[in-house]
Amino acid sequence: MQTLQFTAESSSDGMIERDFTLGDVPGVLWSPASGAGRAPLVLMGHGGGTHKKHPAMAGRAQRLVTGCGFHVAVIDAPGHGDRPRTAYDEQEIAELRRAQAAGEPERQIVVRYNARLAELAVPEWQATLDALQELPEIGADGPVGYVGIGLGTAIGVPLVAIEARITAAVFVCTWPDVLLEKAQRITVPIEFDLQWDDERISREAGLALFDAFASKEKTMHANAGRHMELPRFEADSATRFFARHLGRTTVTSPA
Amino acid sequence: MQTLQFTAESSSDGMIERDFTLGDVPGVLWSPASGAGRAPLVLMGHGGGTHKKHPAMAGRAQRLVTGCGFHVAVIDAPGHGDRPRTAYDEQEIAELRRAQAAGEPERQIVVRYNARLAELAVPEWQATLDALQELPEIGADGPVGYVGIGLGTAIGVPLVAIEARITAAVFVCTWPDVLLEKAQRITVPIEFDLQWDDERISREAGLALFDAFASKEKTMHANAGRHMELPRFEADSATRFFARHLGRTTVTSPA
Repeated sequence: MQTLQFTAESSSDGMIERDFTLGDVPGVLWSPASGAGRAPLVLMGHGGGTHKKHPAMAGRAQRLVTGCGFHVAVIDAPGHGDRPRTAYDEQEIAELRRAQAAGEPERQIVVRYNARLAELAVPEWQATLDALQELPEIGADGPVGYVGIGLGTAIGVPLVAIEARITAAVFVCTWPDVLLEKAQRITVPIEFDLQWDDERISREAGLALFDAFASKEKTMHANAGRHMELPRFEADSATRFFARHLGRTTVTSPA
Repeated sequence: MQTLQFTAESSSDGMIERDFTLGDVPGVLWSPASGAGRAPLVLMGHGGGTHKKHPAMAGRAQRLVTGCGFHVAVIDAPGHGDRPRTAYDEQEIAELRRAQAAGEPERQIVVRYNARLAELAVPEWQATLDALQELPEIGADGPVGYVGIGLGTAIGVPLVAIEARITAAVFVCTWPDVLLEKAQRITVPIEFDLQWDDERISREAGLALFDAFASKEKTMHANAGRHMELPRFEADSATRFFARHLGRTTVTSPA
């Protein structure tokens, strides 16, 4: 088994930030500055074109770490953040930019590229989880959650479908196409965020993905607004969702 | 203008309960035992076949009063609770029971009966709000919210559509039929609860009602489960929604 190598450490706002590498995969682990005891772990998958420390990741981590005392880990997806792009990455990204500039449909390109990234990223996440659970402050028996945004959902749905250690997940909507069959194997509690006026992912597509989860407890939060307008209070809601399901009983909400 | 007559008062768990009548309409006003200052008001409309002090009302009131320091008022709908049934009520209820026992569709009967009750109840609510705003602990300028469940939504949608004093509303799904046109006039923030596996109200019908609200800020919470299985955490979510919109900034959630 590969071992996590910590490469940098800093601290602010009650949160310790440790950069790490696992083989050639770079990641970040955020932890409570105060706590020494074991605490639940939340894995987060960033959106396409962003990276492990994007504000959408760091902001959610802050809530989970200082609000609930959890650990939060994010790794860069293949071709993202501090990882090199392959010729294939460059080719798909150029194709996507061309389609977007021409006002042509992007769905087929994004679905294909994300599916390829997920094939690579799922085993990376499993190795990362193995290594994180070796840390005494996390441990092998603690509860594990997953949050995915866009690409992070395209990676997270196949990951959660096969990874029994993950017991609760929050997914922000992406195209359902290749994910439907994997979603049908997921039975853990799910919170699913969909933008009601999403100009990129059709309402029917989003509803179909939510419908596919086999989970007995699943909740969709559909908000008025476009693709990039997910309200901030949904990050608070996700925090409460994990507080409920990963074993902490009280959280103060900045409502 | 009619004046509110208080007829009984009791106190428990940090909440003062005052029964009142306004003309021949009986109601209840729950208030914080501790607070003397002005506080926002939430009106709540109970479900069909229930009454103003049904646990679904009292439980939500407890969260709003002790969690946020708000006042909460519920009145019995026509033919419900402490109010007499007319011959028309008896006839519609008998017709509904007959259809349900025979396994026949209930939609047409419920929609028709609820629409008639809403015609009566909307002016009753407006008179109640007039009278409540005469109380010094509520006042004429304070923020006002509305919560409706089932029949309470069938009454609440036309009420909120015409009542500018109500600035935020939570609706638990009911049939959209006669409500669509009223919902299109509503622009205040909305939280809308829908049961994804509702055996009485079809998914398409529920989605159509959510879609109809003209509100720039609207959120649908769709939960796996049948008509009567709305999760309790949605009552907590509604409390946070009002804390956000009626002007209190922090609420501790029993997540």
